[in-house]
Amino acid sequence: MTGSHTGPAHWAAVDWGTTHLRLWLLDHNHNMIRQTETEQGMVQLQSTEYEATLLDLLSQDLQPKHPMDVICCGMVGSRQGWQEAPYAPCPTPPPSGAHATRVTTKDPRIEVYLLPGIKQISPPDVMRGEETQIAGFLSRNPQYDGVLCLPGTHSKWVHISAGEVISFQTFMTGELFALLCKESVLRHNVGATGWNDEMFTNAIDDAISRPAAIAAQLFTLRAQSLIATLPPEAARARLSGLLIGLELAAARPYWLGTQVAVLGDTEVAQAYCRALTAQGSPVKMTATERMTLDGLKSAYNTIQELTK
Amino acid sequence: MTGSHTGPAHWAAVDWGTTHLRLWLLDHNHNMIRQTETEQGMVQLQSTEYEATLLDLLSQDLQPKHPMDVICCGMVGSRQGWQEAPYAPCPTPPPSGAHATRVTTKDPRIEVYLLPGIKQISPPDVMRGEETQIAGFLSRNPQYDGVLCLPGTHSKWVHISAGEVISFQTFMTGELFALLCKESVLRHNVGATGWNDEMFTNAIDDAISRPAAIAAQLFTLRAQSLIATLPPEAARARLSGLLIGLELAAARPYWLGTQVAVLGDTEVAQAYCRALTAQGSPVKMTATERMTLDGLKSAYNTIQELTK
Repeated sequence: MTGSHTGPAHWAAVDWGTTHLRLWLLDHNHNMIRQTETEQGMVQLQSTEYEATLLDLLSQDLQPKHPMDVICCGMVGSRQGWQEAPYAPCPTPPPSGAHATRVTTKDPRIEVYLLPGIKQISPPDVMRGEETQIAGFLSRNPQYDGVLCLPGTHSKWVHISAGEVISFQTFMTGELFALLCKESVLRHNVGATGWNDEMFTNAIDDAISRPAAIAAQLFTLRAQSLIATLPPEAARARLSGLLIGLELAAARPYWLGTQVAVLGDTEVAQAYCRALTAQGSPVKMTATERMTLDGLKSAYNTIQELTK
Repeated sequence: MTGSHTGPAHWAAVDWGTTHLRLWLLDHNHNMIRQTETEQGMVQLQSTEYEATLLDLLSQDLQPKHPMDVICCGMVGSRQGWQEAPYAPCPTPPPSGAHATRVTTKDPRIEVYLLPGIKQISPPDVMRGEETQIAGFLSRNPQYDGVLCLPGTHSKWVHISAGEVISFQTFMTGELFALLCKESVLRHNVGATGWNDEMFTNAIDDAISRPAAIAAQLFTLRAQSLIATLPPEAARARLSGLLIGLELAAARPYWLGTQVAVLGDTEVAQAYCRALTAQGSPVKMTATERMTLDGLKSAYNTIQELTK
């Protein structure tokens, strides 16, 4: 989209997470002028440093007379971020510009809005960032009624109906996988790369049929490496299958007999699709590259309408 | 036991684990002369450094004419340790001196024996160190028929009958608890100390009735801290309860309707006892302070008889 057809810089969309910042600079017609990614995520920044970080990335594009709108989603709006954008309570449409928190900046050349996350009181759950991906998905699939699965460090299962997030549930599956691979005694036995599809599918079945046994099954990976021969790539596929299978066992009410769209096109998203397909669940995978940006565009449009 | 009634140093018992070394110096009648604990565990040592480490700890007690027997158990006998002491296959009595591997040392003033662990082919499992605690328990309870529960980083459930280890199963519960407390996103919400008995017992029930939900229940701890008020000590008790409950759900064939002895008197062992008692299982707790030493004494006695 970069090139001679784009107009002057008009607004910026920012996905500002725990460890990364992604910024898209757009013209009046939402054509992308430039995209930037840095590691200036929440963990790197004090609350006083967010404005300077933005100004640094945008300085060459700012005009004294026309302040630039900057719409941000993600952990930037958490209590530990720039400023708290209070959660919208579920059920709710994915938060739009109408729910955004306006940040008072020192520099008058930017107008910054933080989008809130969503909270669910019972069972207690929260999301911050995923709601904007969901908004992006719904902007392209406005009639969607069914379940979204968002794999990640903290994967989410989300029930969508009539344009609203009805309920959701978060699983620490991705974080558990990373911790076990890198920090536990299994790090000696589980490969950092490699895969074995049969091991993965069998592990899914094992975990679904005996979910409670997970902590024992994990140690079995180590024992198998010590007294038998379990190649590291097979151990990796089995570990992934055990943890995703455990998640599927608990998330069954979300996917059983329902349309599921898996957001993402990563290796992990592919694994979720294979696992669901093996369980006989109809599933389609949707690339998320532009989904967050689409959600930020929707939010920007609402803000424009509200401030007309 | 230290004092004027002990004779000259005769042999040494060593519990040589992954991170620690505990050495007891004993006289001819197994009276303790001295006890030493250092952090010279397996992770600190190259295989060539074990002998020097021992000589360092024993130098003042060695006599040129009477080599001192040193009986070791634990990870020192693993493939990554001093020298591999191959696992005894299950079912087996806890390995005694008859199964020990004699290490060739450069210094003739010590005679070193490494006790093997136990392996189980199906389901694959291993132990190394716990078998000596079990031998110690059996030396004091020779007629014991039932189940032993050994809480720890990798907790073990062991079925004992007629003096033999019939079967066992290892759970990574303790390691999962430590990883989640210290390395995961829950570290912001889970206290390093403190306890809440009601939270613990409820969590045990929750995990036993819905074991698959564990990865979601874990994230709930975080959400509850963010949108409600979950004190860190309550979160700690609930996390412990969820993980121990998950283990109990899978270990049910070991404890249901059976006599269980929990080895240990740590806070964790107490938690296992409370959890089992709440599930209506008769349980007794046995201090393990001397159990490993008792097991090493048994092994030493066998070696004496064999080398007479």
